[in-house]
Amino acid sequence: MDIQAFIATRRDGGRHPSADLNTFAKGAADGSIPDYQLAAWLMAAYLKPLNEQETAWLTEAMADSGERLDLSGLPKPWVDKHSTGGVGDKTSIVLLPLLASCGLTVVKMSGRGLGITGGTVDKLGSIPGFRLDLSPEEMKAQAKRIGIALTGQTPDLAPADKVLYALRDVTSTVSSVPLIVSSILSKKLAGGAETIVLDVKCGAGAFMRDLEAAQTLAAALKRTAELCGLNIRIAITDMDQPLGSAVGNALEVREALEVLQGKPSRFASLCIRLAGLTLAAAGLAPDRDAGERVAAEAIASGKAKAKAAEWFAAQGATVDVFAHPTALPSAKIKVDVLAPSVSGWVSGINAEAVGHAVVHLGGGRLKKSDDVEPSVGLELHVEVGSPVQPGDLLMTIHARSLDEAKSAELSLKDAFTFSSSKVDYRDPIIAVL
Amino acid sequence: MDIQAFIATRRDGGRHPSADLNTFAKGAADGSIPDYQLAAWLMAAYLKPLNEQETAWLTEAMADSGERLDLSGLPKPWVDKHSTGGVGDKTSIVLLPLLASCGLTVVKMSGRGLGITGGTVDKLGSIPGFRLDLSPEEMKAQAKRIGIALTGQTPDLAPADKVLYALRDVTSTVSSVPLIVSSILSKKLAGGAETIVLDVKCGAGAFMRDLEAAQTLAAALKRTAELCGLNIRIAITDMDQPLGSAVGNALEVREALEVLQGKPSRFASLCIRLAGLTLAAAGLAPDRDAGERVAAEAIASGKAKAKAAEWFAAQGATVDVFAHPTALPSAKIKVDVLAPSVSGWVSGINAEAVGHAVVHLGGGRLKKSDDVEPSVGLELHVEVGSPVQPGDLLMTIHARSLDEAKSAELSLKDAFTFSSSKVDYRDPIIAVL
Repeated sequence: MDIQAFIATRRDGGRHPSADLNTFAKGAADGSIPDYQLAAWLMAAYLKPLNEQETAWLTEAMADSGERLDLSGLPKPWVDKHSTGGVGDKTSIVLLPLLASCGLTVVKMSGRGLGITGGTVDKLGSIPGFRLDLSPEEMKAQAKRIGIALTGQTPDLAPADKVLYALRDVTSTVSSVPLIVSSILSKKLAGGAETIVLDVKCGAGAFMRDLEAAQTLAAALKRTAELCGLNIRIAITDMDQPLGSAVGNALEVREALEVLQGKPSRFASLCIRLAGLTLAAAGLAPDRDAGERVAAEAIASGKAKAKAAEWFAAQGATVDVFAHPTALPSAKIKVDVLAPSVSGWVSGINAEAVGHAVVHLGGGRLKKSDDVEPSVGLELHVEVGSPVQPGDLLMTIHARSLDEAKSAELSLKDAFTFSSSKVDYRDPIIAVL
Repeated sequence: MDIQAFIATRRDGGRHPSADLNTFAKGAADGSIPDYQLAAWLMAAYLKPLNEQETAWLTEAMADSGERLDLSGLPKPWVDKHSTGGVGDKTSIVLLPLLASCGLTVVKMSGRGLGITGGTVDKLGSIPGFRLDLSPEEMKAQAKRIGIALTGQTPDLAPADKVLYALRDVTSTVSSVPLIVSSILSKKLAGGAETIVLDVKCGAGAFMRDLEAAQTLAAALKRTAELCGLNIRIAITDMDQPLGSAVGNALEVREALEVLQGKPSRFASLCIRLAGLTLAAAGLAPDRDAGERVAAEAIASGKAKAKAAEWFAAQGATVDVFAHPTALPSAKIKVDVLAPSVSGWVSGINAEAVGHAVVHLGGGRLKKSDDVEPSVGLELHVEVGSPVQPGDLLMTIHARSLDEAKSAELSLKDAFTFSSSKVDYRDPIIAVL
């Protein structure tokens, strides 16, 4: 293939045949196509987007650019769950044991957090002893044995995507729907899952800030996944306010444990509904409603909690955090923030501002090399729709020092908005595709 | 400057302030902005073109990215002449001594040929002893003494352009008008000429293949040059058929010598008219017509020929090629090609095919590292508009071997087209801006 002609085709809005995209992905992965030509193509692809068929071909080409994981022979239907990332998004910690307890196998490679969207690996890392470095062999053995395995040791899946993603990050070509879609799905395809449930977050605390953008991305993900032969379900969920009452690593684990023990909340309802969607998609329930009833029953009966305890222990947890939640890291400083002199309802909690505040408390990373402090974060005592009176408790800041707590309080002074007329609670699920 | 934000501005069709373009050009020149970011910006600039003001700012920024040549203190008005390149374009060899004999200073950095468009340096290199490695000091001294100097030793003018040009060449971003304009003019600006005459070639043997493209480029060159404070004149000239009767290094020098000695031809008329334009632009003639009369008189009187002889000797020529034209390299094999069994007029001579044939005879380069054979080439005995009878002489192939001559003949069998109805001779100048 003539790489310059390939770039010119993209530049002129022409069409790439599948074979050319394969050659391109292999050249990106093995370094034989230099960065500057990849970068020129990425910018051309940003401005002259790939069509659906090209996006599917690029997805397959990137999946084929390295090894494809062989997790065949698992005893139960195997699902992968992926979120585009949000503030307070600890869904995986609930959903994985919940789904496993309902008869699915869940094998998941998770990343560390960067920027305002936390990472499941950082959150689970606050459980004493929890191992996040399982090898592919350990993953497979554990998944066979207990139906659930999670690692931060992502094998070299879709190496072409790794190269292209790093370049997109420094060439202002990240926010292109076909490039995002092929990046997400190529790793799923290489990971080999049978059923995939994607949670596309939408709002101030997410990559997709408005509904139109989220819907466009979700539709493209669905269409491309189908062209690649994947069984996929997509939920667009609200990320305008933080998800749940906790933002911060150990605090979020604590909230997940509460959900698994049956405490109801808006976040708990999201988990149950995503579980219902997944169970229906995998054929373990006739429809979503039936799936939700199965999931709710798994929580009510204690099966989900038991599976979570089994999972934590299997991955090396040295303490049963259900029995001893105080074993989780806890911040020295706790500062309560009260409602100002308003009566009415909470009309908004800026998820982006909350995310930044937690990063600055030490709970997230500004650079890849930063360390994360597990104990810090925010506990929110209200959500959008909550009635408030002056002096009501809005949130508790968990910090390493009083200075950091005060600085978080200051940065969040406009994060809460109020209305004197009634505001409805918000459904956590915006749409299902 | 945040380089990612700078790329995003271009990507979104926004506007670059002058200061950002300066930082960008300096970063390109000193290597502090990596290739992949330059490449992404170039593709964005290709698809979201710079406006006129931005093009002028980029031109100045690239000119300022390295040293600017100081040729101040020359006794006579100083002009630079530049052609966008064509097949058989030996105009500089006539125009430089012609202009110098009329009272201008002409200082020129010339390139070697690549592809089908020959280079003045290669052509002059066929004169025995002619030096093409004058230093800036030698250039200045010679220009002061005889009003004319030419070198192939291009100093490191506009280093940002050098970096960006090399990248454009491999990222399919060459043919963008603002990028072409800033590339051409940044070197002129750094070279410091007072008046510039640009010959924009148009047709099958040129980079700009159709008139619309050539007009767009010429208009952009003029507007940007004016914004940069340059005194510029632009001629759009015909390159659909080869220029003049010779294509090939020594053959073209011989044709130039004939013009300087007063032999009339379409090519001679182009030289006189470009000289008239230049003399008017530099203020040495009240208008183009008057300038043309001055130039024609300089040829008729022998002044132009004398200046050329002085120039060749000053640059080291060991033979007076006017007195001894046989001292120029001459090919061993000469093959005449006759007109087929048609009566009528020549309606076309494909300049691109002719250019390729001469390259393959050894007269040009396919790669930068190739050597050039000075003796080979084509002599054309007809031009568009010439009447032909079966058996008339169309061209003579000058080759190193009979095989190469035959192969050139074969490759040119469709290069000449004929018409049974009268075809007019073509004006070499299409437009003047």
